[in-house]
Amino acid sequence: MLKIHDFPALQLECERIVPVDESLAATAKARLDSLAKPPGSLGRLEDLAVRLFCVQGEVPLRARPARLYTIAGDHGVVEEGVTLFPQEVTVQMVHNFLAGGAAINVLSAVSGVDLRIVDAGVAGPRFAPHPLLTDARVRPGTANFVKEPAMSLEETVRALETGVSLAEAARRERYVAVGTGEMGIGNTTASSALLCAYLGFSPQEMTGMGAGVPPAGIAHKTKVIARALALHGEAVRKGDPLVVLACLGGLEIAALAGLILGAAARRMAVIIDGFISTAAYAAAWRMAPAVEGYCFFSHASAESGHARALAGLGQRPLLDLGLRVGEGTGAVLGMFLLEAAARVFNDMATLQGAGVSGPEG
Amino acid sequence: MLKIHDFPALQLECERIVPVDESLAATAKARLDSLAKPPGSLGRLEDLAVRLFCVQGEVPLRARPARLYTIAGDHGVVEEGVTLFPQEVTVQMVHNFLAGGAAINVLSAVSGVDLRIVDAGVAGPRFAPHPLLTDARVRPGTANFVKEPAMSLEETVRALETGVSLAEAARRERYVAVGTGEMGIGNTTASSALLCAYLGFSPQEMTGMGAGVPPAGIAHKTKVIARALALHGEAVRKGDPLVVLACLGGLEIAALAGLILGAAARRMAVIIDGFISTAAYAAAWRMAPAVEGYCFFSHASAESGHARALAGLGQRPLLDLGLRVGEGTGAVLGMFLLEAAARVFNDMATLQGAGVSGPEG
Repeated sequence: MLKIHDFPALQLECERIVPVDESLAATAKARLDSLAKPPGSLGRLEDLAVRLFCVQGEVPLRARPARLYTIAGDHGVVEEGVTLFPQEVTVQMVHNFLAGGAAINVLSAVSGVDLRIVDAGVAGPRFAPHPLLTDARVRPGTANFVKEPAMSLEETVRALETGVSLAEAARRERYVAVGTGEMGIGNTTASSALLCAYLGFSPQEMTGMGAGVPPAGIAHKTKVIARALALHGEAVRKGDPLVVLACLGGLEIAALAGLILGAAARRMAVIIDGFISTAAYAAAWRMAPAVEGYCFFSHASAESGHARALAGLGQRPLLDLGLRVGEGTGAVLGMFLLEAAARVFNDMATLQGAGVSGPEG
Repeated sequence: MLKIHDFPALQLECERIVPVDESLAATAKARLDSLAKPPGSLGRLEDLAVRLFCVQGEVPLRARPARLYTIAGDHGVVEEGVTLFPQEVTVQMVHNFLAGGAAINVLSAVSGVDLRIVDAGVAGPRFAPHPLLTDARVRPGTANFVKEPAMSLEETVRALETGVSLAEAARRERYVAVGTGEMGIGNTTASSALLCAYLGFSPQEMTGMGAGVPPAGIAHKTKVIARALALHGEAVRKGDPLVVLACLGGLEIAALAGLILGAAARRMAVIIDGFISTAAYAAAWRMAPAVEGYCFFSHASAESGHARALAGLGQRPLLDLGLRVGEGTGAVLGMFLLEAAARVFNDMATLQGAGVSGPEG
């Protein structure tokens, strides 16, 4: 019996997610082939348009308005010395997001994406109210998962439901696409552990530099992740996605998983950022495999395990720019490409309408 | 004696191009490392900002306003049956650009890039005046280069000078960046021949599907290119870049080469599109190697020789989206990334300013 059955609201949310209608792909392809260009010559922009049509099922395709949620949380495992930066950087960066000085502020503005910041579990005093901030703190950071589960099942579900409510709010405010972003010192460690548990990778295969840990630090981080997987070995073997998330996850990761579930349940496109967001996706996908059709993988992170994780999930990201800052930076760039794909699909003339000859012979 | 010495205005233009100041890279890197993010964590966006700083040498970096020139020309070699689409598609597509119905119209609008269309040598009646169009037709299409040189030296220089004047106009109108785009049935054939001549590749290595030629057609196209290289073998062996361009090039390709030269001479950033634009770049680079520092390669085209040509030039493109429509579609997406890089460099808070702790230890 999956533990999710003990949480009927969450279970209902998962059951609401219907697979996208892949039978619509042929209609979308026919439209693209009628446009004033050689068939297939817009490459992955055409793939994006086809997939978005399978989500939305109508013309015009819409990729705007779009919102990115950057969700923050802290991690008890930092006491094992797995990070380059001290834990207080999570708090400091939330202040920086709210002040508009972070990479994600700049890149979401350039991409025309609305940005919201969420405290799902930052350690330290609560943040003062701010128009960009959603205070949804479940607890001030997770427990150290090499000693005990990171979160209780109840806490995990509360964080998941936070994410669902973010999707619900975006939908209510007429957003058609959401992106995933995160901030949390220690969260590559949690994400590596989750991806090992969900996808069967070894700690060596999934552990990298995070924000810049040197090689000796990576070896230590790998051992810490191996200890966590050993401690929670029974949960990992049984494979209940909710229990795994509670043992090895983070509050922002659980909230992102909830955002993915909630957005898919509301037929919104979801643009997935990098390594941590991919771990959140893996959790959501294990709870409700039908999320896959709604999700667009924006970029290959420079975090070394990411390419393996994406391959394990059968996903090919749009961009490969060596980003490893998180926050949702790759997602907002991917949201720009999704908008480009939608506009091509909607706005180009047809060969016939433009009076352009087709192929000869 | 290089033939360019017979054309003093063009020679002067080439001599005006000074290498970018690479000693500025350290200053740009220091600024990037002071920003509120782990050092290097914005990957290739940081590389772009560093390179743009070497071009511009001052804060703020500017990637806007930016203009894309889509330059059209026809090719006599189409009578050898090397293309999927008939020659009249060049004219038809220029009309489509002017009516706003092509992929480049949509993507330049999405990217916030101004679009201008140039007739450098389309076959057929002249186009009626239009606010987006520059009439700079040198002749109505090139000659068939398997029988004679595609253009005379004088015609080639006129097309090059057209490109220079486009750069001059953009500079006068306060644009800081230009992108290269093209349209011309048959122009992958000319580009393959040029890249063989300039970079030493074989016709087999540089010949691909163009707008969608089937495998048997590619074999035929390869033979046509080999015949052209044999006919103009002496010019290829002597390696004068202007003579090679005259023998094997196209009017829109020569104009693009001139645009690259003219923009570099005016210290503007140049965003290079795909396969055909890379051939134009190779011509410009052989005439004035210092253009390299001003040029940003936007994307890897699906045209099979493009990856090899880029590797031969030591260039790594920003995007790999399987585009093969030309027109400047990859360039405008690259121009969006250049703007993103500039904005990150200009607008992010510093670690100190944002009160964010640096690495521990």
